[in-house]
Amino acid sequence: MTVAEMEDFLEREFPQIHEGGRIYHVEEIEYGRAVVRLETDDRHLRPGGTISGPTMMALADLSAYVVILAALGPVALAVTTNLNINFLRKPDPSGIHCECRLLKLGKRLAVVEAYVRSRSTEDLVAHATATYAIPPEAGG
Amino acid sequence: MTVAEMEDFLEREFPQIHEGGRIYHVEEIEYGRAVVRLETDDRHLRPGGTISGPTMMALADLSAYVVILAALGPVALAVTTNLNINFLRKPDPSGIHCECRLLKLGKRLAVVEAYVRSRSTEDLVAHATATYAIPPEAGG
Amino acid sequence: MTVAEMEDFLEREFPQIHEGGRIYHVEEIEYGRAVVRLETDDRHLRPGGTISGPTMMALADLSAYVVILAALGPVALAVTTNLNINFLRKPDPSGIHCECRLLKLGKRLAVVEAYVRSRSTEDLVAHATATYAIPPEAGG
Amino acid sequence: MTVAEMEDFLEREFPQIHEGGRIYHVEEIEYGRAVVRLETDDRHLRPGGTISGPTMMALADLSAYVVILAALGPVALAVTTNLNINFLRKPDPSGIHCECRLLKLGKRLAVVEAYVRSRSTEDLVAHATATYAIPPEAGG
Repeated sequence: MTVAEMEDFLEREFPQIHEGGRIYHVEEIEYGRAVVRLETDDRHLRPGGTISGPTMMALADLSAYVVILAALGPVALAVTTNLNINFLRKPDPSGIHCECRLLKLGKRLAVVEAYVRSRSTEDLVAHATATYAIPPEAGG
Repeated sequence: MTVAEMEDFLEREFPQIHEGGRIYHVEEIEYGRAVVRLETDDRHLRPGGTISGPTMMALADLSAYVVILAALGPVALAVTTNLNINFLRKPDPSGIHCECRLLKLGKRLAVVEAYVRSRSTEDLVAHATATYAIPPEAGG
Repeated sequence: MTVAEMEDFLEREFPQIHEGGRIYHVEEIEYGRAVVRLETDDRHLRPGGTISGPTMMALADLSAYVVILAALGPVALAVTTNLNINFLRKPDPSGIHCECRLLKLGKRLAVVEAYVRSRSTEDLVAHATATYAIPPEAGG
Repeated sequence: MTVAEMEDFLEREFPQIHEGGRIYHVEEIEYGRAVVRLETDDRHLRPGGTISGPTMMALADLSAYVVILAALGPVALAVTTNLNINFLRKPDPSGIHCECRLLKLGKRLAVVEAYVRSRSTEDLVAHATATYAIPPEAGG
């Protein structure tokens, strides 16, 4: 899938992620790798002008979905079964992007790792791993 | 802290969590245990009328903060360092609540576990553990 | 399965866990719950006379397998796909036991939580969650 | 610290890891990165001639300790507070090695990621992240 195909797919299948403003932008897709950018707005900020943990979790989860979808093709049904995230540094409010890589694409499970970085400094601000269950008909 | 004191504190320190509508409600607090309820709106739904993973992650993270705060007293500075969540069942859209329990309250780290349940069925829909770093001056 | 059937099964299928001395003892089994005790020996100790992290991880993993096996019946093929553990306190060398509970038993995945406690003080020393993949023919 | 200094340190501080035979070998150390190899023996095998999960967990935990120690200098007191591991493929019995990288070295916490690979095929067989608490006097 191309970046445009992915954005169309997300728009069609998950319009809710754009509720309250279009903040997620798929920037790069290749087999086994994807980059998704988040544009922060007030919803995502916390005292001291940092970006909230749940914002980083949501970005990591969406990015993991994107990298799996890009490898499997457009199946809407893969679901997160586990997500583990370590918060490393407080990002400034300039925004963050997430680079995801497939660690495993099996018939039943896909495992992804996600690096969340500050857009301004490129510092690593969080690291996550996520597991998705793959519907039988779509097995990689 | 009482439920009312906690809600006032969150309102004052984290007004952003109420952006787009007041959805989080602290329902119970006692030492080492707290319950926080989420009222779902369209932002939280996914195809098939289930509640999104990031919604459950955000509720677990906030609930963990509440149970730590209730034990430490109102210090705004505890920050999540790790969150691990297993998604167990798809919740219906009726809403979810999260029961959190302190597993450890140390001088530097607090560890919490969180049970996310459906409001309509009380089924366990997700289970999380979270670690918060405690600022030196507030050490439990 | 009874405690005796479980110990026979482990003996037959996983003789390696008893390499270097019989240290694991299944103490209780009921549907959705199991308790496994570890008798420590020098292999498990660390400076200051505490029990090593890997010893607690191995006990949590085995206990998770036991509780799943007890629910599914004797299928040797369930495999761990994820384990997350938080170390809470340093156990004294007197030994530890692990109480496991099923959080979910699905057709393809089982999720378990594990409480590792000191035998002498009953203090909670570690908490783990584990996910096992269930072979198709055995789906719960 | 050099590879030789690290092996001497482990020998002195953690003789127990060599109980039952010297199986861990530090292969590479540089700032922020370390590689530790495990030589398998019967203790580590499971039915079908694969290497057990706890063996991979123990290797990841030790490797994480090594990469932190290499950065902090020889302080015996860093302790694991969290370890999360995803098991990706069953390794053959030829042995495994673990490459660890520092994601964060803070004053109080260090976060590491670990790639466990088969020695024969170099396939990624497990991926872990670990958090260590750093004693105050040693803060990075």
